Amino acid sequence: MTLLDFERAADAVLDAASWAYVAGGADTQVTVRANVEAFDQVWLRPRALGSASDKPDTSVTVFEQRLALPVLLAPTSPQRLLHDDAEMATARAAEATGTVSIVSTDSHHAFPEVARSVGSDCWFQLYAYRSREDVAATITLAEEAGATALVVTVDASYAARRITTRRAGFRTPAHVDFGNLRSLGILTGAIPDGARIERLPLTWDDLEWIRSRTGMRLVVKGILRAEDAERCLDLGADGVIVSNHGGRQLDGALPSLVALEQVAATVSGRGTVLMDGGIRSGVHVVKALALGADAVCIGRPYLWGLGLAGQEGIEAVLGLLKDEIEDTLLQLGVGSIADLGPDFTTRARFGSGPVAPLAQGDDL
Amino acid sequence: MTLLDFERAADAVLDAASWAYVAGGADTQVTVRANVEAFDQVWLRPRALGSASDKPDTSVTVFEQRLALPVLLAPTSPQRLLHDDAEMATARAAEATGTVSIVSTDSHHAFPEVARSVGSDCWFQLYAYRSREDVAATITLAEEAGATALVVTVDASYAARRITTRRAGFRTPAHVDFGNLRSLGILTGAIPDGARIERLPLTWDDLEWIRSRTGMRLVVKGILRAEDAERCLDLGADGVIVSNHGGRQLDGALPSLVALEQVAATVSGRGTVLMDGGIRSGVHVVKALALGADAVCIGRPYLWGLGLAGQEGIEAVLGLLKDEIEDTLLQLGVGSIADLGPDFTTRARFGSGPVAPLAQGDDL
Amino acid sequence: MTLLDFERAADAVLDAASWAYVAGGADTQVTVRANVEAFDQVWLRPRALGSASDKPDTSVTVFEQRLALPVLLAPTSPQRLLHDDAEMATARAAEATGTVSIVSTDSHHAFPEVARSVGSDCWFQLYAYRSREDVAATITLAEEAGATALVVTVDASYAARRITTRRAGFRTPAHVDFGNLRSLGILTGAIPDGARIERLPLTWDDLEWIRSRTGMRLVVKGILRAEDAERCLDLGADGVIVSNHGGRQLDGALPSLVALEQVAATVSGRGTVLMDGGIRSGVHVVKALALGADAVCIGRPYLWGLGLAGQEGIEAVLGLLKDEIEDTLLQLGVGSIADLGPDFTTRARFGSGPVAPLAQGDDL
Amino acid sequence: MTLLDFERAADAVLDAASWAYVAGGADTQVTVRANVEAFDQVWLRPRALGSASDKPDTSVTVFEQRLALPVLLAPTSPQRLLHDDAEMATARAAEATGTVSIVSTDSHHAFPEVARSVGSDCWFQLYAYRSREDVAATITLAEEAGATALVVTVDASYAARRITTRRAGFRTPAHVDFGNLRSLGILTGAIPDGARIERLPLTWDDLEWIRSRTGMRLVVKGILRAEDAERCLDLGADGVIVSNHGGRQLDGALPSLVALEQVAATVSGRGTVLMDGGIRSGVHVVKALALGADAVCIGRPYLWGLGLAGQEGIEAVLGLLKDEIEDTLLQLGVGSIADLGPDFTTRARFGSGPVAPLAQGDDL
Repeated sequence: MTLLDFERAADAVLDAASWAYVAGGADTQVTVRANVEAFDQVWLRPRALGSASDKPDTSVTVFEQRLALPVLLAPTSPQRLLHDDAEMATARAAEATGTVSIVSTDSHHAFPEVARSVGSDCWFQLYAYRSREDVAATITLAEEAGATALVVTVDASYAARRITTRRAGFRTPAHVDFGNLRSLGILTGAIPDGARIERLPLTWDDLEWIRSRTGMRLVVKGILRAEDAERCLDLGADGVIVSNHGGRQLDGALPSLVALEQVAATVSGRGTVLMDGGIRSGVHVVKALALGADAVCIGRPYLWGLGLAGQEGIEAVLGLLKDEIEDTLLQLGVGSIADLGPDFTTRARFGSGPVAPLAQGDDL
Repeated sequence: MTLLDFERAADAVLDAASWAYVAGGADTQVTVRANVEAFDQVWLRPRALGSASDKPDTSVTVFEQRLALPVLLAPTSPQRLLHDDAEMATARAAEATGTVSIVSTDSHHAFPEVARSVGSDCWFQLYAYRSREDVAATITLAEEAGATALVVTVDASYAARRITTRRAGFRTPAHVDFGNLRSLGILTGAIPDGARIERLPLTWDDLEWIRSRTGMRLVVKGILRAEDAERCLDLGADGVIVSNHGGRQLDGALPSLVALEQVAATVSGRGTVLMDGGIRSGVHVVKALALGADAVCIGRPYLWGLGLAGQEGIEAVLGLLKDEIEDTLLQLGVGSIADLGPDFTTRARFGSGPVAPLAQGDDL
Repeated sequence: MTLLDFERAADAVLDAASWAYVAGGADTQVTVRANVEAFDQVWLRPRALGSASDKPDTSVTVFEQRLALPVLLAPTSPQRLLHDDAEMATARAAEATGTVSIVSTDSHHAFPEVARSVGSDCWFQLYAYRSREDVAATITLAEEAGATALVVTVDASYAARRITTRRAGFRTPAHVDFGNLRSLGILTGAIPDGARIERLPLTWDDLEWIRSRTGMRLVVKGILRAEDAERCLDLGADGVIVSNHGGRQLDGALPSLVALEQVAATVSGRGTVLMDGGIRSGVHVVKALALGADAVCIGRPYLWGLGLAGQEGIEAVLGLLKDEIEDTLLQLGVGSIADLGPDFTTRARFGSGPVAPLAQGDDL
Repeated sequence: MTLLDFERAADAVLDAASWAYVAGGADTQVTVRANVEAFDQVWLRPRALGSASDKPDTSVTVFEQRLALPVLLAPTSPQRLLHDDAEMATARAAEATGTVSIVSTDSHHAFPEVARSVGSDCWFQLYAYRSREDVAATITLAEEAGATALVVTVDASYAARRITTRRAGFRTPAHVDFGNLRSLGILTGAIPDGARIERLPLTWDDLEWIRSRTGMRLVVKGILRAEDAERCLDLGADGVIVSNHGGRQLDGALPSLVALEQVAATVSGRGTVLMDGGIRSGVHVVKALALGADAVCIGRPYLWGLGLAGQEGIEAVLGLLKDEIEDTLLQLGVGSIADLGPDFTTRARFGSGPVAPLAQGDDL
C-alpha cells in the first residue's frame, strides 16, 4: 500500500549482494538518507474549497509529449540483476502507464530492441565511453532507434566509492550483459571482473559538441547548481535533471530537493527541470513539483517493482504513485499539476519523521 | 492523571481495528505526529506576580455562548464504535461540563434526537452528500432541531489514504448506523461494505450558497491558510476551524499549530478562530489560545474517554483538561483567558520532548 | 567525578518516592529536561593566550559578600527527606565552602537555629502563608535571626501538577517537620496528609509592601521575563533569580538559560541577576555567567550530596563544581569571572549531546 | 575501507585503558562528538562538467613545502602507547606519503633522532615547560635538528579533566618515555606517577618572545577565534591551527569546523590556516578546505593506524584519505584543491547522520 511495502518485499526476495547494489550509495550513505529526509522538512499547505473535480489531472507535458503522470523512470543498470526482462519490462511498464523510460547506455537489452518493443517515445541515456568517436556512434544508435531525447549523465564519469556494495561482495552476474556496448564494440569478450570500462570525463566542450551532433532533445542529468543549469540551457540543452545520482556518487552531496529549489528558481521558464533522489511517495512527487520540478524521475522504487514482478511490478509501483498523486492533489484542493507552486509548501523541522505502517498480517 | 493515561487505557480495551481507526491518520502519519510535536517547540513565558485569584477564569464566549472551558468536542464518527451511547454520551458530557459538542452529519444517533436530549446549544457539522437538494435538506434538519452553528467541513470531500486503518482490516461494524443519513434518505438499505457515499466536492460557490441558505452561525472547518480564512469571512462565515483533520486526510500537511499562527495573525478581530489537531494537555490548549485561537476542539482525547466510560469518561477528560488549563493560567500569572497573547510564547527546539511519567509499580 | 555520578549514587540509595520528589517536575517534565538541554546548545569560545594564572579567581561578590564560588544553594524543602541534618548540613557546607545557603520558609530546622549554627551570612527564602500579618511575622523572624537577604519566591503560590511525585505515592514522612511554620504558629498539630497550607498569591502590591517592611536585601525568585525583572528593580528589589522552579511548576515553561539571556540583557548593571535550573557542571555555571548571570543557584545537585553524605556530600558537590569552574576558566583563558561575557559563547545545535561517562568499576 | 574500520579494529586490539586515552576527551565529551557532527551539517555542492582530469591534484603547498595531500599528522603523545616505533613510524609514514609529521615535545623518541631518520622536512611542536630558559633550550634543540616549523600549542597549558581516561585507570606505561624532556633535563629519574610536569601558562608576551627567538616558521595551535588568529599574525606568526585539542581540553568548546569558518574569513590571504578536530574521511577534509583551511591535521585516525600496524598502518590511513580526497574532488568536478571555496558548501541539518556500512557476514 506504500512504496515501503515494495521496498521490504524486494529486500526479502533479492539476494544480499544485489540488494546492496540497488539500495546502497557512496560511503556512509548520508546523501542517500538525506535525499529522503529532505522531503520530511517540507510541509504542504492545502488550499480550501479549491477544486471541484473528483479526478485531478496528473498529466504533464514534457517536450510536447503528454505523460499520464509526472514520473519518469530514471536510467538504471544493470536491470537484469532484478528480472530477466530487464529494460524490456521497464519500457513496457512505462508505455502501459503513459510515461517514459529512460534507457541506459549500460542496458542489458540493446536500445533499438527496447525501442522497437514499445510504440511510445523512448529516451536514451548517454554514458560517454572511450572516445568522441564512440560517443558519436552511441548517439547515432539512439537516434536511429528513434529516441526523442538524449539524457547526458554528467555526474558519473568516475567510479564512486560504494562501500556497501563492495562489502556485500557484489559482482555483475554472468547472465547480465551490456547490449549497447556490445553492438557498439565498446565491450568485447568477457565482462571484466570488478573492472570498469573507462568513461570520458565530460566537459562543457563535450556537451557543446554533443549538442551539435544531434537534433534530439538534450537533457543534462546530474546538475546541482543553478549556474550549471543556466549554462546547460545557454549551450542549447532543453532541460536538466537535478540529481546527485541517488547519493551513489558523492557521500555528502547536498540533497536533491534542496538543490531543486535553487535550480528551479533560476531556470524557471527557460527550460525543463526534472529531478530525482529520495522520492518515496506521491506526496514527495507533489512536493517536488510544487518546488519547481516539471516532473520527477524515480530509480530504486521501480527497481523494487521490477525485482518483485517484472513489468507488472513496475506498473504496480507507478499505479500506486499515480493514486497517491491524485489523492494529494485532491487533498490540496488543486485540479491539476499546473496549479502547484512554492506557496503550497512551508519548511519546518519536527521530531520523529515518518513511520512505516506495519505490513498486512503484522499484529498491531 | 494525564491524557496519555486515557490513551493507553483506551488502547488496552479497544479492539485493534477500532483503535487503528481512531488513532490512525493518512499514510505514514507524519502529520498526525507533527500536530503534537509542534506544541513541543512552543514554550510558555510566565508572567510574575500577575494574578491574585486562586481560581482563574477558564471560560470563553463563542458566538454569545459562554463556555466553561475553551475546549469544544470536534465532530467525529462513528462514535458508536467506542460506546453504545455514542453522540448522546458526548452531547451530555459537553452539556455537563459547560461546553459544546459538534455533532457530525455521520452520527449514529440522528441530530434531532441528540439535540433534544440536552438543554444546551448544539452545533451541527455538515458533510455535503450527493446534491444541493440533499445538502439543503440536511441544513434544514439541523436548523429545525435547533442547531445554533453549522460547521462545514471542507477538507474531507475525498476519501483519504488511511493505510493503518486498512491494514488493521477496519470495517464499520453492524451495530453502527448513520441516523441523519437514514432520516434524510441519503442512506437506505444495508451499509455498503467498505464503500463510501460520495460527497460533493465543495467550492467557494457552494459555501456562498450555504451561507445564503441559513441564519445559523457558519463555521468553516479545515482551513490552513490565512487567505482562505479571510475569504470565508468575506463571504459571510462567522469563523473558521484551523485543522488538517487530525492528520487523517493529507500526510504531509503542515501542523495545525503552525497554520494557526498565520491564520490568527490575519483574521484576528474579524471572526472566530478555532483550531484542532495535536492537543494532548491543558498546556497545549493554553499554547493554542496564546497563539490566537479563541477556543480549541479535541477529537481523539474525548474518544478515549468515551471508549473507556461513555459520558463519564468524556467528563473525566474534560475535567482533567479544565484542571490543567486552570493550573497553567495560575502558573502563567493570568486571571483569565482574555489576558493571553503571543508574548506568552517563545519558539525553540530542544532535544528530547515529553516523557510520559510512569512510576515503579504502575501497570499501565 | 561528575555531578551525574552523584545523581546515580543518590538514586541508588534513596527510596523511590523520595527520589521521585527530588527528581520529578511538573507533568511530562519537558521543562525539567529542557533546562539541562538548553546548556548543550550553547558552546564556549576559548580565548587564546589570555591568562597567566594557574589559579583563576572563582570568587564573586554578591551584595558586598565575597563568595568563594559563584554558586549558591537554592532554597529546597523538605531537606530532612534526604538527611537528618537537613538545613543544618546545608548551611554548614555552604559556610565551609565559602558560599551562601538560602534557607526555605518550609525548612525542617527553624531559621534562627540554622543561622546560629554558622558564622557566615544567611539568606532567607520567603513563602507567603495565610495573611500579611503572618508574612510580616515571617520577615521579622528572618530579620531578627540575622538574615542579610530575603528571597521572595513568586512562582510557587499555587500547588503544581507533579504527576511523577504523585505516581510514586510520595507523602511527607513523619520525621519531617516545618520549624519556621511551627514557631510562627502557621502550622499546629499534625502535618496535614497530602494537603498543603495555602499560600497567598503574591502581587506587585504585596512585593511593594514587603519591600517597605524590611531593610534586608530583597531578591525576587521566579522571574522569566525582562519586563518583570525591571519592574522588580523599579520597585526597590536588589536582584532577581531567573528560574522556572526547576521545571516543577509549569510544564512547558521556557528553559531558564533562554530566559536568562533576555533578562540579563535588560537588567545588566541595574541589579543582581542570579539563575537556577539545569546546572549539572562547572561548564554550565560558566555558560550562565557568560550569558549574564552574576552567580547561579543549584538545587537537585546539592540534594544528591546531602542524601549521600550530609554536609560532607554537599561539600563534595561544591568542591567538584569549584574545580570544574576553575578548569573551565583556565581553558577559556580568563583569570576571573569578571572577564566573562556573551562573546565567550556561540549557539549551535548538534546531534547527540552529552554522554555520561561510565562509573568507576564499570567495564568499558 | 573507511576510517571507521580502522577505529573499530584499533578498539579491538588495544587495551581498554590505552583506548580510553586515545578516544576520550574532556568530561562528557560533547566537543569530541560535536567536532565530528559539525561536518555532517555541511553539504557539498558539486560543479558539473568541471574537470577533465582523471587524477585530480591533491597536493598543497604549505610554507614552500609541497605536500602530496593536504593532511598533516598532528602532534600526539605518548605514541609509544600504540606501537614501539612510535614517532619514528609516524615520521616515516609521513615521509613515505609526502606529508609532514609534527613531532611533539612529549615524544618518546627525541626529536633529533626522529628528524635524522627521515629525509624530509620535520615540524616540531612546542610545549613550554618550567621556565623561559627551558623553552629556549627546547627551541634550540628543534632548530639544530633541522625543524622547519615550530608549532606552539597554546590550549594545553593546564591539565584537562579527562574523566574517561581516569575512569579507565590509565597510567603512562613503563615502556613509554619522553626523549626530548630527558635530553633537555626537564625530566630526570622515574616518570612521576599520575603527576604532570607543570607547563608555563603561555601569554601573548611569551609568544612574542618565542617569535624573536627563532627563524623557523611559527604556527600557533589551539586558536578558535578570529581576533586571536589576527593577533598571532600581527605578532609575526606564519599561521594558526584552528583546534580545540580534539575536544580533550574544554568540554563544551565550539566545534573546530564552526570556528574555522570564522577564522578563515578573517585571516584569509594573510597567513596559513590549518585545522584539526573531527576529521573522519576525505569528504571531511574537502569540506574543511572548502571552508578555508589550507590543510588539515589528523590525530586519532593515524593513531588507529599506528596501533594496528605501525608505519604501514599510518600509510594505509593516509592512503585511504588520499583516495577519498581524490574521489571527492573528482565528484565535485574540480581538478585541484586551489579550486575549492565556500561556494562548494551549503549548511543544512538533516536527521539521521552517517551510518557505518556493514554487510552481512562482516565480523567487525
